[in-house]
Amino acid sequence: MQRLLLTAAAAVLGLATALPAAAQFQKPEDAVKYRKAGFTVMAAHFSRLGAMAQGRVPFDAATAQANAEIVAQMSKLPFAGFVDGTSGTEKGAPKANVWSDRAKFDAGAKKLQDEAAKLVASAKTLDGLKAQFGPTAGTCKACHDDFRNP
Amino acid sequence: MQRLLLTAAAAVLGLATALPAAAQFQKPEDAVKYRKAGFTVMAAHFSRLGAMAQGRVPFDAATAQANAEIVAQMSKLPFAGFVDGTSGTEKGAPKANVWSDRAKFDAGAKKLQDEAAKLVASAKTLDGLKAQFGPTAGTCKACHDDFRNP
Repeated sequence: MQRLLLTAAAAVLGLATALPAAAQFQKPEDAVKYRKAGFTVMAAHFSRLGAMAQGRVPFDAATAQANAEIVAQMSKLPFAGFVDGTSGTEKGAPKANVWSDRAKFDAGAKKLQDEAAKLVASAKTLDGLKAQFGPTAGTCKACHDDFRNP
Repeated sequence: MQRLLLTAAAAVLGLATALPAAAQFQKPEDAVKYRKAGFTVMAAHFSRLGAMAQGRVPFDAATAQANAEIVAQMSKLPFAGFVDGTSGTEKGAPKANVWSDRAKFDAGAKKLQDEAAKLVASAKTLDGLKAQFGPTAGTCKACHDDFRNP
């Protein structure tokens, strides 16, 4: 019953596809490694889109589309790795406010997922990619500014 | 024209969805970081399936399905990171035969992708998951035995 309620709540929050797949972690270090890995994969494909949006590599619709789909899929994953007790003070580590201001953090994650989903449709053309790359990148920056140690 | 031929060749090899999305790397270290990250994410979700297949956590069809889909998607990614000059001799690093016996390595990657794709269909039931988990795990082990430093 608890599972049913959780699933229903997740659906309402638009997290239906993300939550059931959430990786489970035996140790906090595993969660940290997982979330870093997810962001690394997402960033590699997102930077490929950036290179096209900024004209550093020629635009190719199929490549853009494939990379955007991976970014959209990857955007759902790393947030499961923000488990309790894994904040830090070193460069790049999440600040304690990820946990103390969780609603804002979760809203930021949702915003990334929403903008990344739009990117899939937008990346069909160079103009579309150019228009949607910035707003998507902005969701990365917003969370980093608020929640990540510089 | 070269691109067209490459795309056609990729389609024949069943790599059509993997190749156009291949991340590009400025430095070999970026490729190494990327492939490790991809395997880390894949392993986290695959181990969740293992826990269900082996009865350590209760089987849940939606969870199994979602994890299997992520494993299948992730299985397409890390191999782009095996760029020239990134073999090693330390524990876990790829041996030089990844490059000297590339056809066999690529066939191993394809086998993983094929078995992971079957896992998506199989994971709808516990019996199906139990039947397909082993063959999929076997493709991991086969490549590790042949190509990874113990």
